[in-house]
Amino acid sequence: MKLSSQQKIFIEELKSFLRIPSISADPAYIDAVRKAALWTKEALENAGCQKAEIIETNGHPIVFGQVEVEEKFPTVLVYGHYDVQPPDPLDLWENPPFDPVIKTTSLHPHGALFARGACDDKGQVFMHIKAIEILLAQKTLPCNIKFMIEGEEEVGSNHLEEFVRNNKEKLASDAILISDTGMIAQDIPSITTGLRGLSYMEVSVTGTNRDLHSGLYGGAVPNPINILCEMIAKLTNEQGKITIPGFYDEVINLSKSDRQKLAQAPFDEIAFKKDIGLLKTQGEKGFSTEERRSIRPTLDVNGIWGGYTGKGAKTVIPCKAFAKISMRLVPHQKWEKISFLFESYFKQLAPESVSVSVTTHHGGMAYATPTNSTAYAAAKAAYEESFGVVPIPHRGGGSIPIVPMFEKELGIKSILMGFGLDSDAIHSPNEHFGLFNFFKGIETISFFYKHFASLKKTEKIKV
Amino acid sequence: MKLSSQQKIFIEELKSFLRIPSISADPAYIDAVRKAALWTKEALENAGCQKAEIIETNGHPIVFGQVEVEEKFPTVLVYGHYDVQPPDPLDLWENPPFDPVIKTTSLHPHGALFARGACDDKGQVFMHIKAIEILLAQKTLPCNIKFMIEGEEEVGSNHLEEFVRNNKEKLASDAILISDTGMIAQDIPSITTGLRGLSYMEVSVTGTNRDLHSGLYGGAVPNPINILCEMIAKLTNEQGKITIPGFYDEVINLSKSDRQKLAQAPFDEIAFKKDIGLLKTQGEKGFSTEERRSIRPTLDVNGIWGGYTGKGAKTVIPCKAFAKISMRLVPHQKWEKISFLFESYFKQLAPESVSVSVTTHHGGMAYATPTNSTAYAAAKAAYEESFGVVPIPHRGGGSIPIVPMFEKELGIKSILMGFGLDSDAIHSPNEHFGLFNFFKGIETISFFYKHFASLKKTEKIKV
Repeated sequence: MKLSSQQKIFIEELKSFLRIPSISADPAYIDAVRKAALWTKEALENAGCQKAEIIETNGHPIVFGQVEVEEKFPTVLVYGHYDVQPPDPLDLWENPPFDPVIKTTSLHPHGALFARGACDDKGQVFMHIKAIEILLAQKTLPCNIKFMIEGEEEVGSNHLEEFVRNNKEKLASDAILISDTGMIAQDIPSITTGLRGLSYMEVSVTGTNRDLHSGLYGGAVPNPINILCEMIAKLTNEQGKITIPGFYDEVINLSKSDRQKLAQAPFDEIAFKKDIGLLKTQGEKGFSTEERRSIRPTLDVNGIWGGYTGKGAKTVIPCKAFAKISMRLVPHQKWEKISFLFESYFKQLAPESVSVSVTTHHGGMAYATPTNSTAYAAAKAAYEESFGVVPIPHRGGGSIPIVPMFEKELGIKSILMGFGLDSDAIHSPNEHFGLFNFFKGIETISFFYKHFASLKKTEKIKV
Repeated sequence: MKLSSQQKIFIEELKSFLRIPSISADPAYIDAVRKAALWTKEALENAGCQKAEIIETNGHPIVFGQVEVEEKFPTVLVYGHYDVQPPDPLDLWENPPFDPVIKTTSLHPHGALFARGACDDKGQVFMHIKAIEILLAQKTLPCNIKFMIEGEEEVGSNHLEEFVRNNKEKLASDAILISDTGMIAQDIPSITTGLRGLSYMEVSVTGTNRDLHSGLYGGAVPNPINILCEMIAKLTNEQGKITIPGFYDEVINLSKSDRQKLAQAPFDEIAFKKDIGLLKTQGEKGFSTEERRSIRPTLDVNGIWGGYTGKGAKTVIPCKAFAKISMRLVPHQKWEKISFLFESYFKQLAPESVSVSVTTHHGGMAYATPTNSTAYAAAKAAYEESFGVVPIPHRGGGSIPIVPMFEKELGIKSILMGFGLDSDAIHSPNEHFGLFNFFKGIETISFFYKHFASLKKTEKIKV
């Protein structure tokens, strides 16, 4: 793949975006998050947006941009986020997370940009900005475009719902387009037709008012770490089922034929295991690996800490132990209800000797989208044109809680055109995004607008 | 309590000792540990030791000192340590751990020195140095004294055994005197007649070769934190028993009459709970709180960590999770065997989907000492003289692994005269040592030498 001078410029621009450590979860990076918002606003202006603005919220700001080509054109609302996950653990990064470098990998022989946010989601947001820039320069943009790029996706999009609810007219559009997911493989493009919901909790177990010497007190006092471990162990059973009473009440078991349809997506379990260095897959009994990570709910401890974690040995019984625990949800499970059920059950698991606190970080509903919409048809045609193959409808395991929220508040379905690979290590050390994927993304997005405008025109004539 | 000018000087000297952050567990403090060794050597010289030297080991150095008054006098070997526990968690200290201050508490109305190491063990080592200084100045020291003050007690005394084995003549003595334990209450002095052993392990569970996105992978891959929690939960059962096969094989159940004797030591369970802010005691079924923390073995997780532990939420499945786990042992349990049994069982608990590593940090045997020795009689007489009451023989829950090692290598029993209180928060934030206890300690130690010399003389005459 020989890069054109324009492509080289795009990469340098994206690098400067990736150098901003816009970690929304960590208050120490509040200035960097704002810097990334300003960067996004300027990039929208440079691409040719007639309007680009920073919209303040009670959290990190939202960047809004707009291009109106002709009033009669259909309008597409592009959503993305400029914030990133924390880069921890830092010592596992081969290069610093905010100092982007291009390296090749077996799946990215043409090179990939390595940096936190390369794929999730700065790189994918930037594809959209560049697609518009190219089409505007060519005067071939057949849609009006609105951009809504937020800075709190990685911390639960806390202030987006309020903004959307209060700005329905500003955000009015014919379709919402999001690139914040992945595709099955370099030669197997896919459109995400379902996403899991999320309920993210934090818990603490407190035994005493101070840390104690494990010799003087050990055996006679509750150890919050041992107890937290026992409580966590009780949240799932040997069959890989979650034991919270009522947890599965809203889960609809897919029909045999639906499961067969999903099973048609190519999946190489040996390659899957090899990529992540896994000895053996593990999960809910009675379901395949692909089902376990898409159509079934989960419970994972995302972090745990307590006591002495430095070098060497310290004979301490800590007074507190903590964990971050999240559940991925499937359509119809209500995250608020699940958070409540978790809290009640978790507290019930505690022995009388300790006190327990449970807080909800954030949550979001699962989502499933139909494959018979105009936007889906346009996306399908776009992938066929750029990749030369029909894209596969795919149920994703991740969560973008704002997708069901958009539908609820704006009455608009989202179309999820993602260009990353599972192996791109989003949320992990050494996150990267293939240059092939980045440029294919720009191309496919451009084709989408063409097909969407054309199909919309046909629709109108039909009506 | 009005302090004499000499007492004021002693406190200032001890403060300067406490200002040295001699944290043996953390390699970053290697220079501070050496500084504390030099400080100890100089303090021994200033007290009047004819010989004081730094003895290098493959770890932190040992400080050796010697006073020979008259060849015919009995010799007492004083053991202590100048290293301290790490001060974490720092945010729970009311004053910086290495900036000693005097404050009063309900149990220490005359004031207590607050600093890491105040009680464990710098303050208690310093009592011994000052007792010798006073007796030498008065020319009334009736014993020859050897000091062996090490710098690795808090990390397992890794290089002491080799030193002791190779220096039997240098260390030859009639009794070993150690102040590294506590007493029951300000008006209830006690002599520790038993200590628990220790086996300290570190474990890790590895699932994949990198951290994963909990949405994309959750449900289909092993989560090392969940699995570590399940494995830890299986190490103990509902009765508070440790489930490691063979763990109790060497544990001797005390007779009813032995248990009744130990139960005579005054213990106020309500005050015990109130002091540490505990809702309810918890432990092995069928044993009292005092038994659980002295004559019964335990298993405590001392630290656990894995995944995202910063602020906010990160939807990650970490590739690894870690824990530090230690077991307190009772007489006859062999720590090497227990470490081996733990490792075999822990690995057996792991599902096939993960790999597990287990390492031993250090260990030590439990110890029980008779109450019919000359040294015990001298100590008893010393306490009667200084406190006006008969001291209580007490089984402690902590571990000083070097005590059984001294007996094995040197054939000498140790006598454990400790002056701290349980509530002095050793190994915890806000560690402190009462001024009353410090000065009573100096007094009692001086009386010990008088009685020991006198009883030894009588012994000789009898023989």
